[in-house]
Amino acid sequence: MRKLLFILLLLSTSAGLRAEDGHQLWLRKQQAVPVKVVSSATNSPVVAMAKQELQQGWRGKAGASVSLTLKKDKAIKYDGFRLIPNGVQATTEAGLLYGVFEMLRRQQTGQAVSEGLLNPSYEHRLLNHWDNPDGSVERGYAGQSIFWRKDNALVTTAEDKTRWQQYARANASVGINGAVINNVNASQLILTPEYLVRVKAIADAFRPYGVKVYLAVKFTSPALLGGLKTSDPLDPAVAAWWQSKTKEIYKLVPDFGGFLVKASSEGQPGPQDYGRTHADGANMLADAVKPYGGMVMWRAFVYSPNDKDRAKQAYNEFVPLDGKFRDNVIIQVKNGPVDFQPREPFSPLFGALKKTSVMPEFQITQEYLGHAIDLVFLSTMWEECLQSDTYQAGTGSTVARCTDGSVYPQKHTAMAGVSNVGLDTNWTGHDFAQANWYAFGRLAWNNSLKSAQIADEWLKLTFYGATAPQSAAPKYAADWNTNFLAPVKQMMLDSRETAVNYSMPLGLHHIMSATRGHYGPGPWWAPPKMRADWTPPYYHQADSTGVGFNRTRTGSNAVSQYHEPLASQLNDPQTCPDEYLLWFHHLPWDFRMKSGHTLWEELGYHYDKGVQQVRQFQKVWDKAQPYVDAERFAVVQYKLRSQSGNAVQWKDACLLYFQQFSHMPLPAAIEPPASNLDAIIANDMRPRRQEN
Amino acid sequence: MRKLLFILLLLSTSAGLRAEDGHQLWLRKQQAVPVKVVSSATNSPVVAMAKQELQQGWRGKAGASVSLTLKKDKAIKYDGFRLIPNGVQATTEAGLLYGVFEMLRRQQTGQAVSEGLLNPSYEHRLLNHWDNPDGSVERGYAGQSIFWRKDNALVTTAEDKTRWQQYARANASVGINGAVINNVNASQLILTPEYLVRVKAIADAFRPYGVKVYLAVKFTSPALLGGLKTSDPLDPAVAAWWQSKTKEIYKLVPDFGGFLVKASSEGQPGPQDYGRTHADGANMLADAVKPYGGMVMWRAFVYSPNDKDRAKQAYNEFVPLDGKFRDNVIIQVKNGPVDFQPREPFSPLFGALKKTSVMPEFQITQEYLGHAIDLVFLSTMWEECLQSDTYQAGTGSTVARCTDGSVYPQKHTAMAGVSNVGLDTNWTGHDFAQANWYAFGRLAWNNSLKSAQIADEWLKLTFYGATAPQSAAPKYAADWNTNFLAPVKQMMLDSRETAVNYSMPLGLHHIMSATRGHYGPGPWWAPPKMRADWTPPYYHQADSTGVGFNRTRTGSNAVSQYHEPLASQLNDPQTCPDEYLLWFHHLPWDFRMKSGHTLWEELGYHYDKGVQQVRQFQKVWDKAQPYVDAERFAVVQYKLRSQSGNAVQWKDACLLYFQQFSHMPLPAAIEPPASNLDAIIANDMRPRRQEN
Repeated sequence: MRKLLFILLLLSTSAGLRAEDGHQLWLRKQQAVPVKVVSSATNSPVVAMAKQELQQGWRGKAGASVSLTLKKDKAIKYDGFRLIPNGVQATTEAGLLYGVFEMLRRQQTGQAVSEGLLNPSYEHRLLNHWDNPDGSVERGYAGQSIFWRKDNALVTTAEDKTRWQQYARANASVGINGAVINNVNASQLILTPEYLVRVKAIADAFRPYGVKVYLAVKFTSPALLGGLKTSDPLDPAVAAWWQSKTKEIYKLVPDFGGFLVKASSEGQPGPQDYGRTHADGANMLADAVKPYGGMVMWRAFVYSPNDKDRAKQAYNEFVPLDGKFRDNVIIQVKNGPVDFQPREPFSPLFGALKKTSVMPEFQITQEYLGHAIDLVFLSTMWEECLQSDTYQAGTGSTVARCTDGSVYPQKHTAMAGVSNVGLDTNWTGHDFAQANWYAFGRLAWNNSLKSAQIADEWLKLTFYGATAPQSAAPKYAADWNTNFLAPVKQMMLDSRETAVNYSMPLGLHHIMSATRGHYGPGPWWAPPKMRADWTPPYYHQADSTGVGFNRTRTGSNAVSQYHEPLASQLNDPQTCPDEYLLWFHHLPWDFRMKSGHTLWEELGYHYDKGVQQVRQFQKVWDKAQPYVDAERFAVVQYKLRSQSGNAVQWKDACLLYFQQFSHMPLPAAIEPPASNLDAIIANDMRPRRQEN
Repeated sequence: MRKLLFILLLLSTSAGLRAEDGHQLWLRKQQAVPVKVVSSATNSPVVAMAKQELQQGWRGKAGASVSLTLKKDKAIKYDGFRLIPNGVQATTEAGLLYGVFEMLRRQQTGQAVSEGLLNPSYEHRLLNHWDNPDGSVERGYAGQSIFWRKDNALVTTAEDKTRWQQYARANASVGINGAVINNVNASQLILTPEYLVRVKAIADAFRPYGVKVYLAVKFTSPALLGGLKTSDPLDPAVAAWWQSKTKEIYKLVPDFGGFLVKASSEGQPGPQDYGRTHADGANMLADAVKPYGGMVMWRAFVYSPNDKDRAKQAYNEFVPLDGKFRDNVIIQVKNGPVDFQPREPFSPLFGALKKTSVMPEFQITQEYLGHAIDLVFLSTMWEECLQSDTYQAGTGSTVARCTDGSVYPQKHTAMAGVSNVGLDTNWTGHDFAQANWYAFGRLAWNNSLKSAQIADEWLKLTFYGATAPQSAAPKYAADWNTNFLAPVKQMMLDSRETAVNYSMPLGLHHIMSATRGHYGPGPWWAPPKMRADWTPPYYHQADSTGVGFNRTRTGSNAVSQYHEPLASQLNDPQTCPDEYLLWFHHLPWDFRMKSGHTLWEELGYHYDKGVQQVRQFQKVWDKAQPYVDAERFAVVQYKLRSQSGNAVQWKDACLLYFQQFSHMPLPAAIEPPASNLDAIIANDMRPRRQEN
């Protein structure tokens, strides 16, 4: 942040106008065109918002009349809607609001506002905020929490309310209808009356935008807060405590969404502490919220240092419990079996839990993908996961279809994204990280949407006309499409593969720096006595015989958790896709790749390509300057430079580190290292202040 | 050094054989071929050495008979020699030794040992050691002093003697015949009886190789050591003290060479402290050594913060004194008017002092050229200076000819080089820095030698056969020439221009880091209250109107210190060579260069080219691996990587720094920055341990 402030200071002294600071996100003020709004709905807060948005953002025919109609319609699912001639029709007030945002988005991005039915893929589309009561944000790179703060923690100011409304509006504009407003590593504090007052204030601010509040809860809250001797889920007093607490919450927040629980994982307490199962724990909480229509989201992110392969554990723990959960419990499963790595195969739990509701969890905040420094558009990664075929119910059983109710009759469907929002003016630290918030919402609404379309929409909404009136001559639009939209969109679409190339190509994973908060390379990190499954060597398994984690039938047999024909395909290095090769295989350095290169060469080419790609991004952005306001241009340019150095460091560090095992020269065609391994390691280990 | 030890440790655990550690320099052991030596000279130590070298290194006809003949010969100058059929003829014993080394060098580098007269260009060919009594070496990057040490400072060990002999032998092999064995920022300690005992021991070790000892003296020694009230050179008691001290020295060291003095410069005391001139000071000392045939080398490196242009001061101070010095005083002038920068025009004192002996001083240690990290062959830089035409006595009055007695009737001629030698096993820190020691000696012997020949010789002597018996099949020789010699020689010859490109192109100078001992970029460095002429902005003068130091007739008029037609050529930016453009001119950022580019673009292209060139060096070296022993290969590869990062940092730092003034985009064709200016500055300013 110091760096950012520095450059902003430079700008503010030199430039002057600061019309575009990113705070408006993809909802930048439009030139008003008059519109008449007619509604059959009572003028509830949600409908009022729908009208207001129409009046603020209408870009259709001047003086047109637009109807907002609430009407029974069996074809409309959840809070979906129909676009009808000159209006929106829905079965819920939120549906009307979403319909309005859809119309406006189409107008603003130059698409036809044609008639049609638009249903959301998931009933619940949620952000998870890893925000702590002290205002810090775990894995947050955009400043402190927008919900909590250290001092005067519980006084709700006018500024708070405005910010919460802006936040809820942004969510509503992309269809997000829920937010877990505290960290999954939860403090029991959140359930104290003092904090619940603030929870109510937040819920009140969200409500007009159709966004529900959820809370992450600490499983031992009954003992910690209620003074009980145990938090055993099968203890009636414990259940009673939760029922009472739930009642207290619903009194304050009648549309409270429910609980999110991280239990028996990474030091968090859970039912296993009392000899109970995940199902016992989840069901007890589910019973508490059931009378109010609430939900329990129970995270499957569990692992212990006992097992030989961390990637297998969630499956092993949860599959035996399939069918044992209440119908208002939904198992929240990270996209991959380890932990939000730049590339993972999909979690084998998707499709494998057939009698239990399952929801995908994505990470919007870039814990392993460059924090708020590197430009990485995550939509392609999520699209890749959603479109992965699990084969669990025949060909075409994609992760998307296994979680949205198409394949299994789930009572509830949902998708969660770990938020990247903080107090920074532009909300997300990196201007382009806004696109990940946007993309998450769009994919949660429509899980078959293409990333290219999402990027296209977001760029038009976020940057069009930043340096010229939006009503400028057609020449501007044409130039903008050619010189800005096309190259910048391509950069976004390439950016995740680029990050994979320069950090963890070919299925490598979890080899990041431990000392720098998971930013930059750290394949060497393995202090004495550290539990192995927290150290990179556990994951890359590099030695003189080769590199990669043997998860085949001769190894940990994690492949067996996948359905055929996928299991066999992954099991054979000749058929396993290059992208997942070292995830599933420990292969000799001279293994012959499909490209004809050795594995060692291929690694080198991937790392080098990543570096060259970031440099290309820098050039793309430099050329985009005429179309971007000075402030956002300079900040993104600044961050791309840092990313460029980061990419070089990844490449040098990993290739030189692995070379100690391969004993092979670097491919002659790649750029030679610009530093030495010992210097990189010394710098990685150097004490430093945290800078985010 | 820590880094180097780390990699050597790695090597020693993996490799095994350490046949080539660089300690033998260019004098690696040869396969013995029998030879008979016949000599008319008495078997003095020097002649004994000549014989021994012949017997150790003979590669001519087995059983040949070689004569070493002392004979009067007016064509032989100083300690020159004739190569005659099957022998060497000289007028001095040292001449015989040099003749032997010449024969052996020719044999070992595949040149014909044809007859001929070989005279040295300079009578005195000296190394200056900036070694302090505590064993530290100012601007030394190859470990502690080989002459002095902190503990047991004055006990001379067998190891000391061996090292001094090896050192003297290396000097003799390239014709160096003198060494100033302590720092020009001299401690009075050197003249105490205790230290003089050690000086004698060193002189004794040198003598068989024809190398004389000289001392740098502190001008105020009479007051500091002798208890006098003054050190005024015109005070008879002061002169008497020096006479007495000189006598004491010559009693211990009968062939003592004389004194080197840095006076009235950078805080060192001098005659000006007593209202006397440089001539007064130098002459007084000259009178003291005169009876013994000694010399005084008086440095012209003087400047004060008072003048508007530091580059002009030495000329201004010394030219009025021309003709006022004793004939055994020689003014020692750095190659350029400022201070050993990567590129400077020659000092205008060369040729301008017409009635005073003048000697060039070069810096072998790489203070401003990458320490012992960056590979920079300095021979081309010195060649450039020596061949520069001063026009002071008509066309062809090169610096070489103005200092070697060809143009002016100097009583004494000399050349000095600031040594890069220390206790490191390979003597010079970087294996390729040995080449700079070698080249200095060769150029001091023959100031019209070409750098290509010097590099050719040095590479053959230093690397040939490192991974194969030297008597290997002709195929090895051919391969070696093509695959090693040609590309590595080209790398050496390109290396200085490369360093200029990535650090200070187009006449930029003195913009290095102050905080990191002159390694890396620091154009921003200008703490409050720091004297301006020690800060980079004084030298680059960058502002919104342009960059460069206006030394034209409208500026400091330093150009007037050069002789016509050079003065006018330099004065006009259209005729001033690009290499010196910003040395003499402050030009607008959009100034049109001869290339057609703007000055700003040209700067960008030069910095970028420097980076690309270092990367090319890395590739050249990687390809050379089959011809280099494991140890030297790995260390040089390691250092090239550091140099590569250094080059990138120079490029990014300088371009981003200057961009603050130019307000122009970087040329699209160059590699975009991999870091940001504020991060680079913060890193530069970060407290760190000194690592050399």
